[in-house]
Amino acid sequence: MTVTYSRRVADAGLGTFFHLLLRWKGSIYKLLYRELIIFTLLYYFFSIVYRFVLKDDQRRLFEKFSIYCDRYAELIPVSFVLGFYVTLVVSRWWGQFENVPWPDRLAALVGGHVRGDDEASRLTRRTLMRYANLSGVLIYRSVSTAVYKRFPTMEHLVQAGLMTSEELRHLEELRSPHNKFWVPCMWFVSLALRARTEGRINNDVALTALLTELNSLRAKCMKLYGYDWISLPLVYTQVVTVAVYSFFLACLIGRQFLDPAQGYSGHDLDFYLPVFTLLQFFFYVGWLKVAEQLINPFGEDDDDFETNWLVDRNLQVSLLSVDEMYDSLPLVERDMYWN
Amino acid sequence: MTVTYSRRVADAGLGTFFHLLLRWKGSIYKLLYRELIIFTLLYYFFSIVYRFVLKDDQRRLFEKFSIYCDRYAELIPVSFVLGFYVTLVVSRWWGQFENVPWPDRLAALVGGHVRGDDEASRLTRRTLMRYANLSGVLIYRSVSTAVYKRFPTMEHLVQAGLMTSEELRHLEELRSPHNKFWVPCMWFVSLALRARTEGRINNDVALTALLTELNSLRAKCMKLYGYDWISLPLVYTQVVTVAVYSFFLACLIGRQFLDPAQGYSGHDLDFYLPVFTLLQFFFYVGWLKVAEQLINPFGEDDDDFETNWLVDRNLQVSLLSVDEMYDSLPLVERDMYWN
Amino acid sequence: MTVTYSRRVADAGLGTFFHLLLRWKGSIYKLLYRELIIFTLLYYFFSIVYRFVLKDDQRRLFEKFSIYCDRYAELIPVSFVLGFYVTLVVSRWWGQFENVPWPDRLAALVGGHVRGDDEASRLTRRTLMRYANLSGVLIYRSVSTAVYKRFPTMEHLVQAGLMTSEELRHLEELRSPHNKFWVPCMWFVSLALRARTEGRINNDVALTALLTELNSLRAKCMKLYGYDWISLPLVYTQVVTVAVYSFFLACLIGRQFLDPAQGYSGHDLDFYLPVFTLLQFFFYVGWLKVAEQLINPFGEDDDDFETNWLVDRNLQVSLLSVDEMYDSLPLVERDMYWN
Amino acid sequence: MTVTYSRRVADAGLGTFFHLLLRWKGSIYKLLYRELIIFTLLYYFFSIVYRFVLKDDQRRLFEKFSIYCDRYAELIPVSFVLGFYVTLVVSRWWGQFENVPWPDRLAALVGGHVRGDDEASRLTRRTLMRYANLSGVLIYRSVSTAVYKRFPTMEHLVQAGLMTSEELRHLEELRSPHNKFWVPCMWFVSLALRARTEGRINNDVALTALLTELNSLRAKCMKLYGYDWISLPLVYTQVVTVAVYSFFLACLIGRQFLDPAQGYSGHDLDFYLPVFTLLQFFFYVGWLKVAEQLINPFGEDDDDFETNWLVDRNLQVSLLSVDEMYDSLPLVERDMYWN
Amino acid sequence: MTVTYSRRVADAGLGTFFHLLLRWKGSIYKLLYRELIIFTLLYYFFSIVYRFVLKDDQRRLFEKFSIYCDRYAELIPVSFVLGFYVTLVVSRWWGQFENVPWPDRLAALVGGHVRGDDEASRLTRRTLMRYANLSGVLIYRSVSTAVYKRFPTMEHLVQAGLMTSEELRHLEELRSPHNKFWVPCMWFVSLALRARTEGRINNDVALTALLTELNSLRAKCMKLYGYDWISLPLVYTQVVTVAVYSFFLACLIGRQFLDPAQGYSGHDLDFYLPVFTLLQFFFYVGWLKVAEQLINPFGEDDDDFETNWLVDRNLQVSLLSVDEMYDSLPLVERDMYWN
Repeated sequence: MTVTYSRRVADAGLGTFFHLLLRWKGSIYKLLYRELIIFTLLYYFFSIVYRFVLKDDQRRLFEKFSIYCDRYAELIPVSFVLGFYVTLVVSRWWGQFENVPWPDRLAALVGGHVRGDDEASRLTRRTLMRYANLSGVLIYRSVSTAVYKRFPTMEHLVQAGLMTSEELRHLEELRSPHNKFWVPCMWFVSLALRARTEGRINNDVALTALLTELNSLRAKCMKLYGYDWISLPLVYTQVVTVAVYSFFLACLIGRQFLDPAQGYSGHDLDFYLPVFTLLQFFFYVGWLKVAEQLINPFGEDDDDFETNWLVDRNLQVSLLSVDEMYDSLPLVERDMYWN
Repeated sequence: MTVTYSRRVADAGLGTFFHLLLRWKGSIYKLLYRELIIFTLLYYFFSIVYRFVLKDDQRRLFEKFSIYCDRYAELIPVSFVLGFYVTLVVSRWWGQFENVPWPDRLAALVGGHVRGDDEASRLTRRTLMRYANLSGVLIYRSVSTAVYKRFPTMEHLVQAGLMTSEELRHLEELRSPHNKFWVPCMWFVSLALRARTEGRINNDVALTALLTELNSLRAKCMKLYGYDWISLPLVYTQVVTVAVYSFFLACLIGRQFLDPAQGYSGHDLDFYLPVFTLLQFFFYVGWLKVAEQLINPFGEDDDDFETNWLVDRNLQVSLLSVDEMYDSLPLVERDMYWN
Repeated sequence: MTVTYSRRVADAGLGTFFHLLLRWKGSIYKLLYRELIIFTLLYYFFSIVYRFVLKDDQRRLFEKFSIYCDRYAELIPVSFVLGFYVTLVVSRWWGQFENVPWPDRLAALVGGHVRGDDEASRLTRRTLMRYANLSGVLIYRSVSTAVYKRFPTMEHLVQAGLMTSEELRHLEELRSPHNKFWVPCMWFVSLALRARTEGRINNDVALTALLTELNSLRAKCMKLYGYDWISLPLVYTQVVTVAVYSFFLACLIGRQFLDPAQGYSGHDLDFYLPVFTLLQFFFYVGWLKVAEQLINPFGEDDDDFETNWLVDRNLQVSLLSVDEMYDSLPLVERDMYWN
Repeated sequence: MTVTYSRRVADAGLGTFFHLLLRWKGSIYKLLYRELIIFTLLYYFFSIVYRFVLKDDQRRLFEKFSIYCDRYAELIPVSFVLGFYVTLVVSRWWGQFENVPWPDRLAALVGGHVRGDDEASRLTRRTLMRYANLSGVLIYRSVSTAVYKRFPTMEHLVQAGLMTSEELRHLEELRSPHNKFWVPCMWFVSLALRARTEGRINNDVALTALLTELNSLRAKCMKLYGYDWISLPLVYTQVVTVAVYSFFLACLIGRQFLDPAQGYSGHDLDFYLPVFTLLQFFFYVGWLKVAEQLINPFGEDDDDFETNWLVDRNLQVSLLSVDEMYDSLPLVERDMYWN
Repeated sequence: MTVTYSRRVADAGLGTFFHLLLRWKGSIYKLLYRELIIFTLLYYFFSIVYRFVLKDDQRRLFEKFSIYCDRYAELIPVSFVLGFYVTLVVSRWWGQFENVPWPDRLAALVGGHVRGDDEASRLTRRTLMRYANLSGVLIYRSVSTAVYKRFPTMEHLVQAGLMTSEELRHLEELRSPHNKFWVPCMWFVSLALRARTEGRINNDVALTALLTELNSLRAKCMKLYGYDWISLPLVYTQVVTVAVYSFFLACLIGRQFLDPAQGYSGHDLDFYLPVFTLLQFFFYVGWLKVAEQLINPFGEDDDDFETNWLVDRNLQVSLLSVDEMYDSLPLVERDMYWN
């Protein structure tokens, strides 16, 4: 489920964002605690080795190695590469949200242009919208793990009322190795054309408007497909991961508290708890987690798009729009500001 | 209320931006003074503890800890992460403003294409525009705390003249758990179709243009809904907040003036007032406040969009456009440059 | 007046940009010299105080304070915050330019679709274009100080031939507290509809195309209005200003040449002229000046858009387009490449 | 073949990105191992020379030179310039993907608007779609090395069924030195017009919709052509390459482990394996490789767009859409939610 | 001529970008060698003065000044300001390319909608396209130095067959101080309307589609004009130039090799050749050259758009499209995949 906190930050007051730190769901803590535990354990493993296991001359060696690590850890431009990478991931994430197909606009046109109160007309309108929804769901099945889990086979779509067995048979009979999300779109076209011939759609401008709107919906489906197909280049993700992981690898050794007695600069005191290193871990790995969470927003993370909710909402709203709401109109009366 | 200062900065003169520092409303001072007071109090609390409470050897420990804190405070890339984060928040903020639905374009089409001087025609035009406005207000109620406060129940919308009781009854009778902002759009469609049948709209091109424009408006409403539903991932906000807060936590200790007599490098003098740390606080927390203020621009901050003003303005202008202004035209006469 | 130097930089040669340093109009020197003088005077004021006024132990104190200032000045991420802020301002600046309404496209449609050589037709075409221009000017009056100075009252618009007294009377009679730039648009709609009824516009597709184009123009006007209404949040501007000003405040003390005899590191020599500090001033304050100049491009800076020129050009070109150029066509003859 | 890993990162769990480090195909290792080997060999060459070949005073010189190199290596803002450059390359890469022409929308319109079950009608529909596909392939041949290898001559297009010999003859007879991808578009126009005349397309709105859609496709082809023609300025790519290469040149000398006995600061220990320098190499050159891979996404890299697959998919889907799927419609029956 | 190297970088292999370093045309070397020579000469001038001209105490002074310069050179955020500035320039550069008017889409519509095989129809089609091209060329003349050199007077346009003398006369007779690129557009409108009246264009939808397409072309012309008129603010360019130049001014002194005998830290060795300073020069000035080259892409740099080629190509392709290709269609026969 998407974590919405807009209302909590509507007004900027005293420590508005501070309150957000106290949430668990979708939070940095929930995402990070395992990594943090592993890092802490490893840190104390090395710490114990250094303090209790190593002999004196080994310690001196370790100390020099630690200082060496610390010096180079600072050369790794983690924040820089994370800044650019996360910006990129965020822009793709929002790009995907903007291409989520909502059939509302189409429903308005179908409800307006496909006329008739008889059953055949109702059937036409409902079926047109069902096709449009079906097309979206077929795409979701291939990009969203959540939707795929809900509809592991096409049969499940039939059971959910998104398609009829007859339609499934048609779909499966079509020989093509490629994703068939476009087939319901072609059915839509055929049905719309039939409605035009039968006069339910009574002019060509309306028909063209309908097809154009359908094509917009279809274009959005293809864009989602494209985002899924063309991931961010693996190399980029690897570069960023290598940078962050090697930084913390270096920190495991380099941020150990060394024996103050040896007088290394910046090692005057032994605090046991590397509080700032842990904060840095929190901070950099948290930033990386932002990317991990957003790189595929169609999964089941706390912050991913609720595609299953979308499927239900869109089907319901589009059927309501073209059937119950067809030609429905409250009494038109004078408003309060009349004259 | 939005803080507009465009006119004050129309010309770049001597210290144009300097004058802006002297404003209170919507200013950094107003947003920050509480945090600044808390920070200052905490700072002096530690200062007093260090100077008067601690014993000598405790002081030495504190001094070492202070130096340790100071060194790591500088490792936290606050400005970097703030730069990227605020840029993102600002782009969403403007994206939301660009999707605020203005019914002006629709009003021009309704005023142009729905013909007739009789009461039924006037009623049709006014009601069409009222529906378009109502749809927007229903969205505002769910995204804007200011509008929600003004119209806490649907009944308030009836009282404000945005809908009739009859319409409210229709709306409530529709069984659907989802936001119903789209219902007035479907009424619009039905009424427009009726107007077409009755000949008030006398051609299909005009009808299609009307529905297309309505759909643009509806798309904007859905985008606002999307911005509200899909917040910036909580993790990102938390990462930034953690970075800023931990930086200043480190500063509370690390920027204390240490006893000059101890000869720590960079601690030659005791100024009592940590002027640059306070400036940094001002500066970094101010930057964070930019994000806090913009992350939900539909609240009641000084700088948020005035949605209630928008509601009033849009209703008035759209009714004026399609009623008073209908077919109104000053005498068409030769202009000054004729021949 | 806008400073155009595209032609000067058409080819990248030896020091192409170097030549630009020699210009005065719209230059950094013209914008900055006052601030630079103030800064220099203040710098030498402190310098003189340090060298001639202070006593020896006060000097030691000053020196320590100076070193303290210098150290913290470097902690202020001026270039970072300026980089992000200016990028934002520049993108808004260009966004505003892209929304400047040019009536050229509308003129082509009016010239094409409103047929007839008689005076009434000419009058219709000219008046339609005048309305479109008037709408733009009404917006300019509210966003541009330059246009406002030229037309301080509506009466001035009448005198300039942009509207008739009759139109002004109509405009003023309309009771509405909101900006009325949309009223001429509604007149346009009414006049276009009348032209359709009278057959001057002979088909509905053309009429719809005209209204759509008018709506694009109107949308641009509203965007300009939006940019003016929703300024960049004051807090952001204040944060940046505080950062830059406090940096130079710190520099006033921190960049003083200290007595070389005291042997402070980096203070081996007394050059009297702080050339690099002045360069930094030049550079950072210049960057801030970019923002000051662009944040409202409708003022009267050297680099602001020439809105008054636009008003004149647009009126002339649109009247020429629909009147002199109406149905004007040079003899159509074979071109050079015929067969 | 494009490397798709969206599904692997659907949920952010423990070390989601860590798993990606274990892949070979399209990975940083595959792209980098040759450069890494060369760099390592060169590093050890200098190392051996320093340790075993040089005489004592030559060593002292080498050591000084090494320290000099190291100091300046840090002055080169590699991460900065890479950040900006890669961001730019990535945005062009995605821009190119967004302009890949998919004929699906056109197929929906052709299938809908070109009526008739007879062979001539089928022929018209299939040929129209073939023209649209052919136009895309002609562009691919000029921008994609993969497609060019598959169709080294136009004759290959005939053999692949994308065009007929007759069409090839026409194409070759047209005298023009410029890319002829637009010729099939003109054939499309002619054929569509003929279909209109013969009544297969039965109204003008549909015809215009078809031509508009064709033009969108054509515009995308031209954009791809533009991206190919106007590369990122060579200078920018050279600047970045010079920065990265000179950084590692400096590292070859500057990151040598110097004799600890000489007591150079930061050279307390000789580890033989410059692990952090190699990580930096991995990291910076990997970042550059991202750019190398994306700068022309129409090659045959692991991560390039699979243009040949696109050619096949598009041809098949568009023929299926307008032929097999023409007027095909499963039995329209009541859906599950009827009443 | 534009430097296209896409094909050279199609596949990311061993040192893909390295090969690009070996090119001369459009390269960093060609752009930079003069600046580099000047910088090197100045460097050695100061070097010789320091080594051979100055007396001992003057040398000590010079050394202190050199260290002072070096320290402040590092404070100038050259890479930062260049990064932001070049990103901005690049986005404008690509924005300009995207607004280059290609008449191809219009040609498809003219070829499709203006019917008739007789000479008058051919003449109409050719003349319409010639007008569209002429409009583009008139804009090019005012923004592109290359096109302006080719057509220094309007008479040259007549000679090149882009307009007839009659048309030139008409153009010159129109009294208007503003750029007249829009006049051929109005001729286009008049001619299209005449064609509609004469029945060559046989429906209103087609006519409107034609005018809309013309308006898109015209809008692009105006955007090019806008980019030319509203340069990047001079101040920004000056700020960047000042930063880069003052950095290298400081380097001229600050990067001199000082007498190792004096024991200044970091000055242990005299290498005579300041290889890293030269690399930095190469690198920063190269980055600035990217901006110099792209800030006006309509000049005659190696990497500028080939506007003259565009003029020729567009005229030829558009005449071919509407004349030779008019109604031309290869025999429509069954494709390879028929059934």
